[in-house]
Amino acid sequence: MNERDGTRDRLLVAARALFAQRGFAGASVRAITERARANLGAVTYHFGSKQALYTAVLDQLFRSLRERVAAATAPSGAAAERLRAIIHAFFAFFGEYPEAPRLILHRLAAGAPPPPAVVRQFRPVVDAIIATVRDGQERGVFGPVEPLLATFTVVSQTVWFAVARGMIATVSGVPFDRPEMAAVVERHIAEVARRTLAPGRPGA
Amino acid sequence: MNERDGTRDRLLVAARALFAQRGFAGASVRAITERARANLGAVTYHFGSKQALYTAVLDQLFRSLRERVAAATAPSGAAAERLRAIIHAFFAFFGEYPEAPRLILHRLAAGAPPPPAVVRQFRPVVDAIIATVRDGQERGVFGPVEPLLATFTVVSQTVWFAVARGMIATVSGVPFDRPEMAAVVERHIAEVARRTLAPGRPGA
Repeated sequence: MNERDGTRDRLLVAARALFAQRGFAGASVRAITERARANLGAVTYHFGSKQALYTAVLDQLFRSLRERVAAATAPSGAAAERLRAIIHAFFAFFGEYPEAPRLILHRLAAGAPPPPAVVRQFRPVVDAIIATVRDGQERGVFGPVEPLLATFTVVSQTVWFAVARGMIATVSGVPFDRPEMAAVVERHIAEVARRTLAPGRPGA
Repeated sequence: MNERDGTRDRLLVAARALFAQRGFAGASVRAITERARANLGAVTYHFGSKQALYTAVLDQLFRSLRERVAAATAPSGAAAERLRAIIHAFFAFFGEYPEAPRLILHRLAAGAPPPPAVVRQFRPVVDAIIATVRDGQERGVFGPVEPLLATFTVVSQTVWFAVARGMIATVSGVPFDRPEMAAVVERHIAEVARRTLAPGRPGA
């Protein structure tokens, strides 16, 4: 078992799928190693424990979201442009990792706090959106909405669409679960953010 | 075991709490009857099966949401006023039943479709919001946003706040989980809805 045979990467991929499907407790080390075509000791060898493997899965996955959002907030563009890019970064992330919501949902369903690895990666994401809103406000292109609440408006719609698009399709009878609907909803959320942050006449 | 000793109601309350905490599979008939101070046969006697008890719990719970939203959409008020009342109905519902989100999250985490009882109660809720948006558009007080997408904007923020306010508090460092924050977020969502549906200059 060396690092170069790809066992470590296969364990991460297998564990991500099984933790998403069954939650932390429901995904056994045996099921993970079988799916990864590794021997039963491979989790201990490469990660130390199932808990450490879980942390590695969440770290790798949500680092990818953090990096996408960081790239979207590079300070060259206008604030409104960066906000659209941030929303697109979320949609690109959930498009590449459709299993990501369920990793979080198992914790929320269990009433457990978010894993530290998720908080660690997600906090800079929230900070980047807040900073973008503040920057737009300082330049006078955004109105005086509380930046954390504006961030909530962007993140809640984006995450809930990823989490519940199948349920929304069932309830509404509109095929929200089809891939092409993601672009429609992304444009809508960007327009909601634009209108929420439009300057002038607050409360008018 | 007759209907008048309150056993049926105690079973519903106990089952709602345990299904929310542990999911359908994780909440045993024994745990439910013990919590309800009923004998082991009471679930079969009053409901026929654990599955039928689960359906009764969801039906009772989400009927309460449907009825609140129906009351909020009584056609006397202006469309904008009704939309604010609908948002308040969601917040009042989740304030009274903080366990409601987890009943749904267990299903979403398991990748299972929403239970038919939830779809049955939730579909008229969605229809009521869509009808309110259309009414405002016909009267010219709302702009031409797709009504289902406007509904998504209202429901996604409202539900995600109920689902994830503890996680949002942990990530942001702002105590979103405190009771008084609900009113702040409710006002913000109402303002986002108002701005999203404001008439004139779409895409301006």
